[in-house]
Amino acid sequence: MFPFRIMNQQNVEKLLDMKQVIELVERAYSLKAQKEAALFPMVFHEFSPGKADMDIKSGHLMGADIFGLKLVSWFGDNPSKQLPPLTGFVFVLDSQTGVPIGMMGGEAITLMRTGAAGGIGAKYLARKESEHLLIVGTGHLAPYQIMSTLMLMEHIKKVTVYNHQSLEKATSFCSSLSAKLKEKFLSPYRENQMLFEEYASRIEQVEFVATDQIQKATGEADIIITATPSRQPIIQKEWVRPGTHFSCVGADMAGKQEIDERIFASARVFVDDVAQAVQVGETEIPIKKGIIEKDNILAEIGSVILGTTTGRLSDDDITIFDSTGIALQDLITADYILKQAEAKGIGIVANL
Amino acid sequence: MFPFRIMNQQNVEKLLDMKQVIELVERAYSLKAQKEAALFPMVFHEFSPGKADMDIKSGHLMGADIFGLKLVSWFGDNPSKQLPPLTGFVFVLDSQTGVPIGMMGGEAITLMRTGAAGGIGAKYLARKESEHLLIVGTGHLAPYQIMSTLMLMEHIKKVTVYNHQSLEKATSFCSSLSAKLKEKFLSPYRENQMLFEEYASRIEQVEFVATDQIQKATGEADIIITATPSRQPIIQKEWVRPGTHFSCVGADMAGKQEIDERIFASARVFVDDVAQAVQVGETEIPIKKGIIEKDNILAEIGSVILGTTTGRLSDDDITIFDSTGIALQDLITADYILKQAEAKGIGIVANL
Repeated sequence: MFPFRIMNQQNVEKLLDMKQVIELVERAYSLKAQKEAALFPMVFHEFSPGKADMDIKSGHLMGADIFGLKLVSWFGDNPSKQLPPLTGFVFVLDSQTGVPIGMMGGEAITLMRTGAAGGIGAKYLARKESEHLLIVGTGHLAPYQIMSTLMLMEHIKKVTVYNHQSLEKATSFCSSLSAKLKEKFLSPYRENQMLFEEYASRIEQVEFVATDQIQKATGEADIIITATPSRQPIIQKEWVRPGTHFSCVGADMAGKQEIDERIFASARVFVDDVAQAVQVGETEIPIKKGIIEKDNILAEIGSVILGTTTGRLSDDDITIFDSTGIALQDLITADYILKQAEAKGIGIVANL
Repeated sequence: MFPFRIMNQQNVEKLLDMKQVIELVERAYSLKAQKEAALFPMVFHEFSPGKADMDIKSGHLMGADIFGLKLVSWFGDNPSKQLPPLTGFVFVLDSQTGVPIGMMGGEAITLMRTGAAGGIGAKYLARKESEHLLIVGTGHLAPYQIMSTLMLMEHIKKVTVYNHQSLEKATSFCSSLSAKLKEKFLSPYRENQMLFEEYASRIEQVEFVATDQIQKATGEADIIITATPSRQPIIQKEWVRPGTHFSCVGADMAGKQEIDERIFASARVFVDDVAQAVQVGETEIPIKKGIIEKDNILAEIGSVILGTTTGRLSDDDITIFDSTGIALQDLITADYILKQAEAKGIGIVANL
């Protein structure tokens, strides 16, 4: 009999804060670069093309003595059944014994670790004095991308928000965004007055602006984060000014694309995992179209974090971080949650 | 919030009986042959070669509206830590919505569905009047192989048991085996007097004999079931008489082998899944050594069950069923357990 902890979404959310998740995701990337972590092959299945699919991402964090998997289902017709389209689970096991430790709903982890990834891309690749962030996409991912970038890039003064289908959606997203970000992300820091005030002032110092002028917004941005399910490039090469950094977090399956593949030709390209980026990331199309080759990927982001590969060489470089989302981000976050939950007695424990 | 049922080993065991599992596994094989079920690619990882590994087998049973996975860990050093070497879990999700339904410990399911597989191989490929069963291996799998075969082959009079490392183990295994089989497998039939008495008399009519004379035992057997983790052939071609049926259930990873690869040259070969058998089954070595080609596999067992492929053509045929163990067996059994558990209010229900 093994004690096995099961955590629901609410409990997972209670135990997560963005600062912690950023540290965890940086650690996962670093462990991978040090060969202290490994991804297993991804399993992907389409139940009905364009309507329903699932994937199983799994891996081993030797540096944390855990392995496990995340299964994510996407069923596009679910809202008509009063069910969310995306559901997912993370399972964690002990890599010294193979014994399972716990599981939890995957939605909160996915949003937080994906938010952390976009910000980490900016932290290590964007110009330090970047002031202007452009967010493409106003879905579930967007607030998480904004918050992590505000936490990591202290000079941000303006966040422009673009929805490629509707200005109205972008405007609605921006309305009272300061208050929404504070409510969503700052409560974990209430006991740490200094941190709370620092993050609150980061949010307050920013002007949030909705736009339908994507060409103009692109030309003014220092950092562009794309977080859409697009299958057509939204941002054209000609619009991009020197020095821009891209964190592309939307593409996670073959065929998805958010930025003009020609941008890759003259950019410094970094990814979370080479094999996965080539297969399902923003990097897939530029390679398939022959714009770049796999060898043009300079490194995985972990090497930049560790300092073994230089990210940006000059203020004029265009940099790209292709974040496909790797199981190691989920596993390290889930492991943290399970340890916190055990210490605090949160969740259900079954004897398996 | 979704209700998600978690079942421990004891509860799983309570809800399983061999007759039911045989029917479920036959249904899974049949659905696969009708293209109403599909396996996803297997994920296999060795943490430490020969000492610790894990695999994730997953698939979709369209015919039952479920998909899911089984993760099995094998850590050879676990007994020194007072832990079982094999641990595993089965997860079931709804393939109409992607929403998870439940999970359970995988050990009891694995033993039962693997037992069912060996017996089903005999039912569809051995001579109907087979009287003599030889079991190679005296580990956890052996009693399950014996019970399913006794249930399915009504003329069995003698079961010879061989352990290739020790006669003592085989002798110990055979001692009071009748009583052990009755205790382990017959309690679910106590309320069905006819069935109980039929299965009890099947066990009672059998003579259980331990042997260290494998050549002689092979030459006398009608049905041979191999259920060992061997990496060297235990049974040589020259010892096998015409008409023998083999159910090979031990080989489940590359390099494992229980019977002389030359036996395949003149045998009628059936498998549970062609891709998996070629990769990790008893069929792997004969193909790698060029004894047979992949195309010499006559069919998956489901086609024989459905009657679209003939199993045995004559009483002199040597037949082989290579059972590698497929996720569909686990999923269909787990789905049955979850439905029973829901009806009877067994297990823990978490709101995820």
